[in-house]
Amino acid sequence: MKVVALAGGVGGAKLVDGLAALLPPEDLTVVVNTGDDFQHLGLNICPDLDTVTYTLAGLANPQTGWGRRDESWSFLETLGRLGGPTWFRLGDRDLALHVQRTRRLAEGRPLSQVTAELCAALGVGVRILPMSDQPVSTRVLTEAGELSFQEYFVARACEPRVSGFRLEGLEAAQAAPGVLQALREAAAVILCPSNPWVSLDPILALPGVRPSLALSVTVGVSPIVGGQAVKGPAAKMFRELGIEPSALAVAQHYRGLLAGLVIDRQDHLHTPAIRELGLQVWEEQTIMRNTRDRRRLARFVLECAAVGLPA
Amino acid sequence: MKVVALAGGVGGAKLVDGLAALLPPEDLTVVVNTGDDFQHLGLNICPDLDTVTYTLAGLANPQTGWGRRDESWSFLETLGRLGGPTWFRLGDRDLALHVQRTRRLAEGRPLSQVTAELCAALGVGVRILPMSDQPVSTRVLTEAGELSFQEYFVARACEPRVSGFRLEGLEAAQAAPGVLQALREAAAVILCPSNPWVSLDPILALPGVRPSLALSVTVGVSPIVGGQAVKGPAAKMFRELGIEPSALAVAQHYRGLLAGLVIDRQDHLHTPAIRELGLQVWEEQTIMRNTRDRRRLARFVLECAAVGLPA
Repeated sequence: MKVVALAGGVGGAKLVDGLAALLPPEDLTVVVNTGDDFQHLGLNICPDLDTVTYTLAGLANPQTGWGRRDESWSFLETLGRLGGPTWFRLGDRDLALHVQRTRRLAEGRPLSQVTAELCAALGVGVRILPMSDQPVSTRVLTEAGELSFQEYFVARACEPRVSGFRLEGLEAAQAAPGVLQALREAAAVILCPSNPWVSLDPILALPGVRPSLALSVTVGVSPIVGGQAVKGPAAKMFRELGIEPSALAVAQHYRGLLAGLVIDRQDHLHTPAIRELGLQVWEEQTIMRNTRDRRRLARFVLECAAVGLPA
Repeated sequence: MKVVALAGGVGGAKLVDGLAALLPPEDLTVVVNTGDDFQHLGLNICPDLDTVTYTLAGLANPQTGWGRRDESWSFLETLGRLGGPTWFRLGDRDLALHVQRTRRLAEGRPLSQVTAELCAALGVGVRILPMSDQPVSTRVLTEAGELSFQEYFVARACEPRVSGFRLEGLEAAQAAPGVLQALREAAAVILCPSNPWVSLDPILALPGVRPSLALSVTVGVSPIVGGQAVKGPAAKMFRELGIEPSALAVAQHYRGLLAGLVIDRQDHLHTPAIRELGLQVWEEQTIMRNTRDRRRLARFVLECAAVGLPA
């Protein structure tokens, strides 16, 4: 069965890695958030695309959640000595990816094509699509004013209290070529355990995406486990927006979009309330500590989606 | 005494290194060719400025004549695997210099200021000035058409036959801040053993430079020794332009500009003909194989210049 996964960074990449181990590459398309993309040192950096790509290429750094394994730091160390900015950690090998992407974009290639080229060079068989070829930037509205995502996330370490989000450039953006078609042809669409606010909402905001989801079985995996985000600021964001972070809050966030939600076993007390929203609920161990966990959860999610499929 | 050296790449950097060992930093200004500067991978690269800067910082690679010693190549190796261009060899540490320069230029700083910042960060006390803050690009007219300097020099390995040169952007260029004043205040100006056509002519072509030289004792060091260039395509260029490469040809090239020329001892047969042009000639061992050679030649050149000074 054809599957589309909507993904942000680390959590999304892990589940996608599990899916890629189970499905033939031609049956899996990953649509990745580009709302975190930014320019730094004159380079076009796409953190979520890179995390997914490196993970599927087997090159991801398992410690950090960003960048490459077996990395060296000569460039950044020297840049620091020359008075340049080092807050965004660019390894020597990682840097080459950003330089090559920036070159190709400067030559007029769309991001979707450049992403396909980079995947081919890295031996990634699964199709990875950026959500859009046009820039859409997630702006974080905070007590400290409106911040770019990287300023909020890296430079300010998610500290300022959040009051909302704004997607800059959304009005001029389309889903990237292949995104809507993949969604229409998919038997199942999986919303990975990524940040609902800043990883998946930008994808869902693109014209045509939500209507296309109605054509398939859409299953989510809660990124909130035991009231905490597995990684990143999702729980903090829910709280600052006046919502108790929980699997139920995730279900409410995606209400009307999902056939069902996979939640962690420890959140089973939320199951009745989620069912009352009209969603199916499946309980499983959702934290992915290793490759085996990724495959197990991916298999579980595919089985949940299959339950909802017409016989 | 205040000294200004006009320099291109390797040969110039070596003599400047010798001068820097003898003169207090405040008495030495180096004006460096920027005609070879180019854009690559979105970066502003200044090969001659970098060679002089790295040499004075004690970081130059003694084998290659470009780049840094103790370099690593993770970036370029990865870029090649991703399908990017690797013909211009950018080491991980060298890359940081280009990135920092490009950043600062993009922020609107002039090249002269950025160069001063980089020198300060690298602990270079001697003042290094780019010849101009405006881009002036040496275009090489060849049988294969008009080529950018780096295309001629690196990509085509100086193979196409040369018929002339064109300085693109010269009409809009001024000498960088400090250049003309340094020349006016100098007791001696030294034309380093750099390529006359593509290293020193671009500096000399800037408005005000030639007239300023008339105010001081100007001494050249021949880059042609025994009919050969010590390094690079200078001899080949002379030949292709119909001129037998020799110390005499160098003297003729700079005629009207020099008080005298330092030539290699092995070229002593040219001495009478150079004297006939109205120049003083000094014979010395001019090939610089090590630090000691650099200092010896620098001391010799300073003594020659002192001979021409008013008592």
